[in-house]
Amino acid sequence: MEIIKPRTLSGFMELLPAKQAQFERMLAVLRSTYASYGFAALDTPVIEDAQILLAKGGGETEKQIYRFQKGDSDLALRFDLTVPLAKYVALHCNDLAFPFRRFQISKVYRGERAQRGRFREFYQADIDIIGDGKLDIMNEAEIPAIIYKVFRGFGLSRFQIRVNNRKILSGFYAMLELSDKSGDIMRTVDKLDKIGADKVRGILISECGLTEAQSDEILKFIAITGSNAEVLSALEGYAGRNELFDLGLSELKAVCCNLAAFGVPEANFAVDLTIARGLDYYTGTVYETTLLDHPEIGSVCSGGRYDNLAGYYIEKQLPGVGISIGLTRLFYVLDEQGLLNPDLPSAPADALVLPMTAEAAPAIALAETLRSSGLRVQLYSEQKKFKQKMAYADKLGVPFAVLLGEDEIAEGLCSVKNMVSGEQVKLSLVEAAAYIRAALEANNGPIILEK
Amino acid sequence: MEIIKPRTLSGFMELLPAKQAQFERMLAVLRSTYASYGFAALDTPVIEDAQILLAKGGGETEKQIYRFQKGDSDLALRFDLTVPLAKYVALHCNDLAFPFRRFQISKVYRGERAQRGRFREFYQADIDIIGDGKLDIMNEAEIPAIIYKVFRGFGLSRFQIRVNNRKILSGFYAMLELSDKSGDIMRTVDKLDKIGADKVRGILISECGLTEAQSDEILKFIAITGSNAEVLSALEGYAGRNELFDLGLSELKAVCCNLAAFGVPEANFAVDLTIARGLDYYTGTVYETTLLDHPEIGSVCSGGRYDNLAGYYIEKQLPGVGISIGLTRLFYVLDEQGLLNPDLPSAPADALVLPMTAEAAPAIALAETLRSSGLRVQLYSEQKKFKQKMAYADKLGVPFAVLLGEDEIAEGLCSVKNMVSGEQVKLSLVEAAAYIRAALEANNGPIILEK
Repeated sequence: MEIIKPRTLSGFMELLPAKQAQFERMLAVLRSTYASYGFAALDTPVIEDAQILLAKGGGETEKQIYRFQKGDSDLALRFDLTVPLAKYVALHCNDLAFPFRRFQISKVYRGERAQRGRFREFYQADIDIIGDGKLDIMNEAEIPAIIYKVFRGFGLSRFQIRVNNRKILSGFYAMLELSDKSGDIMRTVDKLDKIGADKVRGILISECGLTEAQSDEILKFIAITGSNAEVLSALEGYAGRNELFDLGLSELKAVCCNLAAFGVPEANFAVDLTIARGLDYYTGTVYETTLLDHPEIGSVCSGGRYDNLAGYYIEKQLPGVGISIGLTRLFYVLDEQGLLNPDLPSAPADALVLPMTAEAAPAIALAETLRSSGLRVQLYSEQKKFKQKMAYADKLGVPFAVLLGEDEIAEGLCSVKNMVSGEQVKLSLVEAAAYIRAALEANNGPIILEK
Repeated sequence: MEIIKPRTLSGFMELLPAKQAQFERMLAVLRSTYASYGFAALDTPVIEDAQILLAKGGGETEKQIYRFQKGDSDLALRFDLTVPLAKYVALHCNDLAFPFRRFQISKVYRGERAQRGRFREFYQADIDIIGDGKLDIMNEAEIPAIIYKVFRGFGLSRFQIRVNNRKILSGFYAMLELSDKSGDIMRTVDKLDKIGADKVRGILISECGLTEAQSDEILKFIAITGSNAEVLSALEGYAGRNELFDLGLSELKAVCCNLAAFGVPEANFAVDLTIARGLDYYTGTVYETTLLDHPEIGSVCSGGRYDNLAGYYIEKQLPGVGISIGLTRLFYVLDEQGLLNPDLPSAPADALVLPMTAEAAPAIALAETLRSSGLRVQLYSEQKKFKQKMAYADKLGVPFAVLLGEDEIAEGLCSVKNMVSGEQVKLSLVEAAAYIRAALEANNGPIILEK
């Protein structure tokens, strides 16, 4: 037979089992946290009609999209989860209850130029709350609580949810009579972290065409920092000059003043006037989330409030608020930096049952007993020498081996061997299950390490 | 703005939230059952190199596959999970511990002609156990236990796992000196359920070129029925005439004799000599699973033992055994026939918190308290009339609404309303959580109904 050399396409993440177990653990935190806030799980097709996916059209998307013909159909793979959500809500709006809250954790596809840490197939973990015509500001206030719970669920405490409001920015630019340039200005200000204040000022003057006075006003504005109370207080100084600004400020206050009730500590939250999110799409609260010890990773969870989700598909006004986590890239970076906790179990089984006798039935019954107590158990059935069996247990990384020889069977016991410490104890089947469960429950460290 | 009419491609399942909740419940049973037997979760790319996916080549696959160019790359979407597994094992074989046990529950793609109940994008829920050179028969014996646990997990008891062994069939055909025609014969016999014994006999003679005596021998053989012990006993009558047959019979006995230890009742298992599985791929035990009250659905879980998983990619001999559930089609048929239990909760939240005062903080704190007890809780924040709030709770199908007015806040209580019975009780926050949890836990009916 002719052999074809196997390979996985570059830009596609394919993990070995132990790494996949770490990835699954992050998925589980996301699913349960999103579900705990009443978001419905959704699952839309990977393939959509290309005309529909590209309704908005435009630059990068069009270049990167995987688009192809099948029969007469012009098809494409989704490049995000927002456009399919817009289609879904527009298509099914009569069957949905609004506000409609959904989460979707799915793969999306972008045929980007291959480079280290860039993926052509990657998971997005999104939540959105969609209103029918209106959506209360409290939905925007709830989002930081969900972000907080997700990252706490990952085991982190040194992260910061940074929040701003686009109405404040737009209102402020209107005060300076710079509304027509606000897009350019926001995109420039967005680079503050990367290039510094001086260069931002330079670009504002030379490329955006601002006066020196206007540039100084903007730099003074975005330099407002301090505690949330201090920032809000400084913003009060601009109040009364522009309606949109005032509305944005009242929204920002509503978001900030309920944080304690939502259980979000002040240390994990900051009003940050430099955040704009590049997209014109957002119209209210905007969010970014950074790992305090790893600013180089950039925002790990971003999103915001928008006013019109599905304008390309339906006349109905559908405002919403949502966030997205680029899970594949986040996982890749965490792994690269050695931040995934190696001490959590990553074997496919909690216990490996090793029969030491020719008769299989006792070992089968032992494995079933352990399973019925909630353990993940593999029965090892190959006819190998003891040493080879233990080598297999080691390679698998299984935390416990359970040995069943003639003596154990005669006594109604089994021998439980801790594969890390080497310690071995003889226990009844019920005791063995409890013993292994207790050890696993004690190993409850964080998924992501902080260092 | 120009409106593009939203649509979802035909042949692609896109569920409303309540239906998706039912689908997710089946996914959860599959994941936890597969994991409990020590299978590692795996996630391979949807897109692969077309040359690699089509290494085996051949007919239907080539016609149905979604294949396209991107840049210089010849790409295709996976059409099953077995070929990507073969690639994965061949590519990573030095990093894997053998036997390698993996499960994958993922979407696959086949551009079939659109028709009712046929899907172009559908989930397969697969497990496979791959050996390096050898794989003990006990792995084949374990598979019925896993199938049993999955369908019991769905809430079913009236199903049957039907098992045969290809070595018995091949050995039997060798006795009749029909080895060269065994493929044709097995494909014909496979139609027995659909077309009956007479027509099978006719095809065997007219199309396969068998003599009347040979056809009668085959029909007599596949007519062997009864309890497992009776079938095995009848098969003993053929023993000693062909080595392959004898090996198959010993394998079948090993599979049957450990069923009790694996906890599989005799009622859910049958040796069935008519089962061959069309594919030449299988070489030992083969499995089909039928719902006893719904034979028209056909096999809902099939698979078998094969000797060479990855021969197209690697010289190494990799025998294995695996099963696959076509989950999307199964779900579609169950739904069509009204067999999905409508009484299980399908709302995205267990409780909807309805604030009745202007101040949000007490309702937020209530929602967080309920969540911390493990409930899925949505905080309703829209400024609507009471009637509209209750209509929303109804449309969402949420089992409990939790009302918080001024009286409740003053008393440190909340009002819990059962949305089905209409009953309403005032409870402390901790009592409310326990009350709702108890009601949800009492609602533990089967996922799939039997009728």
